[in-house]
Amino acid sequence: MSLVSEITDARTSWLSREDLESARERLPLVYVDAFPVRVDERGTVVAVGLLLRAMPDGSISRAPVSGRVLYGERVRQALLRHLEKDLGPMALPRIPSSPQPFTVAEYFPDPSVSGFHDPRQHAVSLAFVVPVSGDCVPSTDALDLQWMTPEECAGDAVAMEMTGGQDRLLRMALAYVGQLP
Amino acid sequence: MSLVSEITDARTSWLSREDLESARERLPLVYVDAFPVRVDERGTVVAVGLLLRAMPDGSISRAPVSGRVLYGERVRQALLRHLEKDLGPMALPRIPSSPQPFTVAEYFPDPSVSGFHDPRQHAVSLAFVVPVSGDCVPSTDALDLQWMTPEECAGDAVAMEMTGGQDRLLRMALAYVGQLP
Amino acid sequence: MSLVSEITDARTSWLSREDLESARERLPLVYVDAFPVRVDERGTVVAVGLLLRAMPDGSISRAPVSGRVLYGERVRQALLRHLEKDLGPMALPRIPSSPQPFTVAEYFPDPSVSGFHDPRQHAVSLAFVVPVSGDCVPSTDALDLQWMTPEECAGDAVAMEMTGGQDRLLRMALAYVGQLP
Amino acid sequence: MSLVSEITDARTSWLSREDLESARERLPLVYVDAFPVRVDERGTVVAVGLLLRAMPDGSISRAPVSGRVLYGERVRQALLRHLEKDLGPMALPRIPSSPQPFTVAEYFPDPSVSGFHDPRQHAVSLAFVVPVSGDCVPSTDALDLQWMTPEECAGDAVAMEMTGGQDRLLRMALAYVGQLP
Repeated sequence: MSLVSEITDARTSWLSREDLESARERLPLVYVDAFPVRVDERGTVVAVGLLLRAMPDGSISRAPVSGRVLYGERVRQALLRHLEKDLGPMALPRIPSSPQPFTVAEYFPDPSVSGFHDPRQHAVSLAFVVPVSGDCVPSTDALDLQWMTPEECAGDAVAMEMTGGQDRLLRMALAYVGQLP
Repeated sequence: MSLVSEITDARTSWLSREDLESARERLPLVYVDAFPVRVDERGTVVAVGLLLRAMPDGSISRAPVSGRVLYGERVRQALLRHLEKDLGPMALPRIPSSPQPFTVAEYFPDPSVSGFHDPRQHAVSLAFVVPVSGDCVPSTDALDLQWMTPEECAGDAVAMEMTGGQDRLLRMALAYVGQLP
Repeated sequence: MSLVSEITDARTSWLSREDLESARERLPLVYVDAFPVRVDERGTVVAVGLLLRAMPDGSISRAPVSGRVLYGERVRQALLRHLEKDLGPMALPRIPSSPQPFTVAEYFPDPSVSGFHDPRQHAVSLAFVVPVSGDCVPSTDALDLQWMTPEECAGDAVAMEMTGGQDRLLRMALAYVGQLP
Repeated sequence: MSLVSEITDARTSWLSREDLESARERLPLVYVDAFPVRVDERGTVVAVGLLLRAMPDGSISRAPVSGRVLYGERVRQALLRHLEKDLGPMALPRIPSSPQPFTVAEYFPDPSVSGFHDPRQHAVSLAFVVPVSGDCVPSTDALDLQWMTPEECAGDAVAMEMTGGQDRLLRMALAYVGQLP
């Protein structure tokens, strides 16, 4: 999550940045991870969208749409909010009807616990695949979006550009939709 | 499935009516059951569509979209074919991206085996919830379509108008989307 | 969760009771709900275990095993911990191999948001069905455990003895295992 | 499935070998695929069992437990029957309580349709992960069983020893249990 959206989140939820930092050291936070996909008329996933950002060292980092569930917020509302924040208001995401995530990714400051790693916090993230049918316009300068085929996604090149074990989460998403090569 | 669509199926698959009858006595058939739903922008199911038909005795029978998977046909193609057959070509169904059904309904000639009953055959049916965003025009005279809220669906009145244990399958679909009252 | 286990949790996680109260007003907490079940050799659920407690007014309250996921704790470890706490060390629970819950129950202080209600907090609970094969000995005086058939569980009498929408969660669990009447 | 078990199946279901061959050319058959696993007390998969067989050319072929669902047979009974046939009567498989498979593998004579390939037939297979807690004694001379860690399973060496796309099904099973490397 970018610094900007982090601050917005904090404001929305009336939780000061200091308090959020404090909570992060003592409670697991609730997150959502969403892989936006393009599907054909039979529902087959033909492309997966990954957010990307130029890193200070010139490398590229790729990631799913991801963010915190706020106090008082439904999980499906959090999904919609983060998708619109990162893909723009015209993305037309089709939030899944079932609250059942395809998996639960547990991020820990210690990378050895689960393979999912977040240096800032312990986050329990509900992971979804979300078809989008509209135009995606990444809404901040820092982020771009790139569509790739399932085959490209599952390759080593993409995996090397993802962090925190999210390459593994991506392969789990591909497995769930029957598109893991 | 109506007689007309049955014959169409048989023709498509080059399986004579006699051979199908014969196979039905000796092999479980592969079926799909699909509950068409209307969803809001957060993916919440706000209405479920049930096919209905006037019975000779004046009663009404309600059912999901349902039908056989043909030889050589993908499950997602069978879903699309049966949804278009029963809801018309403009229904715009959003076939799920994952091949994982929300449950598997096993229909037997003997109603006591599983609670799902089909006097004609043993069918193993992959059950899905399918959002539709277009206009639904039931395509044959015999069938109509009625939209109901999850609350209405789960009531005894609707259950009494369904057969073969499909009222139970409907409640399982509502549970899956978090809308079982 | 009983007062005793609450305090234990707080101690384990080095989070003071005051701090937990404070966090509860500003962050959704991560919970697990587990329905212990007895299964036959084919995996069919033949009985569901519900915890029960005599209320001050003489009524009985029934509930699944439920509790918080601690900072740094894996979800499957939290499941094991709460099951052992409520069912005793000889219950031999078979924690599911997949992290995918059958549903996610979102509890809010406002009962109208999702139908799941917790006056103390906003909790996002991963719900599982957990077969247990050993002897269950509810470990505190306040709690007992009663086994019921799926049919009994789904009846109005049991529903009236459950709170916070957990009767609905129970019916969703029954639907998931194919045993919703 | 070995020749011996094929014949047994045919006899049990009163379907002659010739009739089965005939049906195979015209109807999709219902199958189950089961990956036997060893789990720790938290449900984490620590090993996956793969059947293996020496091929005429000296190579080794690895496969999950797999077989047909018979007419009149419940899916969970078919799972139990095939697991006991291939792993022996003391394997003590824990058949999943939910009929929801982790995926549906569609095998076609044409390998290009879905990536799952069976030269003999179109089979729609419900795929499950099944913990086994007892002693596994592969019951026929032709078959052996080898336990491997998830990491070993996901490697290229194992993939090259599997056929019909079942290496992909294995990786999908690992993804489902959160153990895809």
